[in-house]
Amino acid sequence: MGLKLYGLPVSTCTGRVVAVIEELGLEYELVPVDLSAGEHKRPAYMEKNPFGQIPALKDGDLVLFESRVITRYLVRKYGKESGLLREESPADGIAVDQWIEVETQHFNKPISSLFYQHLLLPLFFGGAADEKVVAAEVEKLEKVLDVYEAKLSKTKFLAGDFYSLADLHHLPYGHYLITTTPHGSLIHSRPHVKAWWDAVTSRPASKKVIAGLTLSL
Amino acid sequence: MGLKLYGLPVSTCTGRVVAVIEELGLEYELVPVDLSAGEHKRPAYMEKNPFGQIPALKDGDLVLFESRVITRYLVRKYGKESGLLREESPADGIAVDQWIEVETQHFNKPISSLFYQHLLLPLFFGGAADEKVVAAEVEKLEKVLDVYEAKLSKTKFLAGDFYSLADLHHLPYGHYLITTTPHGSLIHSRPHVKAWWDAVTSRPASKKVIAGLTLSL
Repeated sequence: MGLKLYGLPVSTCTGRVVAVIEELGLEYELVPVDLSAGEHKRPAYMEKNPFGQIPALKDGDLVLFESRVITRYLVRKYGKESGLLREESPADGIAVDQWIEVETQHFNKPISSLFYQHLLLPLFFGGAADEKVVAAEVEKLEKVLDVYEAKLSKTKFLAGDFYSLADLHHLPYGHYLITTTPHGSLIHSRPHVKAWWDAVTSRPASKKVIAGLTLSL
Repeated sequence: MGLKLYGLPVSTCTGRVVAVIEELGLEYELVPVDLSAGEHKRPAYMEKNPFGQIPALKDGDLVLFESRVITRYLVRKYGKESGLLREESPADGIAVDQWIEVETQHFNKPISSLFYQHLLLPLFFGGAADEKVVAAEVEKLEKVLDVYEAKLSKTKFLAGDFYSLADLHHLPYGHYLITTTPHGSLIHSRPHVKAWWDAVTSRPASKKVIAGLTLSL
């Protein structure tokens, strides 16, 4: 196949792509990008991702960036039968789209901010979390997860009673919320969200991704 | 058809959906949502969008929210032949996906922040733009538009030599950048970005959307 994924196992966005690769059972080579040496801002890498971020994927002559674009691409090209997108059913396909966008617009933002405040800021910049920012982001995330709780009381997964990219995309930041911030109870205290999270994280492919998500203080 | 779009013509996200509706020549009813009265946070509306934001779309029994989900849905259901998604060609389809996500992740964020600083903050909250925030967002946007300039020196539109959702999604925030902030030169000073912007905004459908994007100081 010759899939080359440029990124790092500890990276949330790389992890999103690895999760799909593992779900589909594809062979790939993970090419590490040395962020601390600034490799992601050098021309050789920026030819792959002009925004200088990880990950990027090379599949033959095709180069793609943005994790949520790469995951769609891989499912369409190598794993339609996986049911991760279900585009053959317009109703299922649009439900997957709906919750992929909810992850992007509502789940990702407060958690990435909390992850920055509680882990990246102290780890890489010697700073301390800004408690005002933390409180505001926790409040946003609570409202978001209330919507998830209501939805997951009706269906086992976000787009319906089937596991899809919409669920999978939550894996890296959901995991880091629980392991690197004091706010994991936001997931564990909501029974339907907790049951969903247990179903997402107990998948063999998810366990392989989680094994790489090792950033900690 | 019975399409009902809940939103407001001055809203960027509503505008994104109206642009597709006008491109496809669909009939629809725009149902205004009274934000100043808090209608978007009342149960009757939150049944349509549980996050309490505009827009939402009702098509028969189906209810959708998130503008970029609604646009995809409308093209797939009512306008595949428009070429706005080109999913029948995997190479074109993934290029559209790539640049839809670039708009979401890179273009939208600095411009929405500048729009807030220069227009929403003074208009609705009596505040003044924070020049430090403005400078940081302008610097981000400059880098993003440098990537656009390089890409648009090779193809007429973002995903290739064809107009697609990837271009269309830029319309509302691009327009407000030029009309409500002092940073329109970021677009006009880059020759390929400017030519692209002229092509995007001169479309009859775009002109109808622009006519509704009237927020100003």
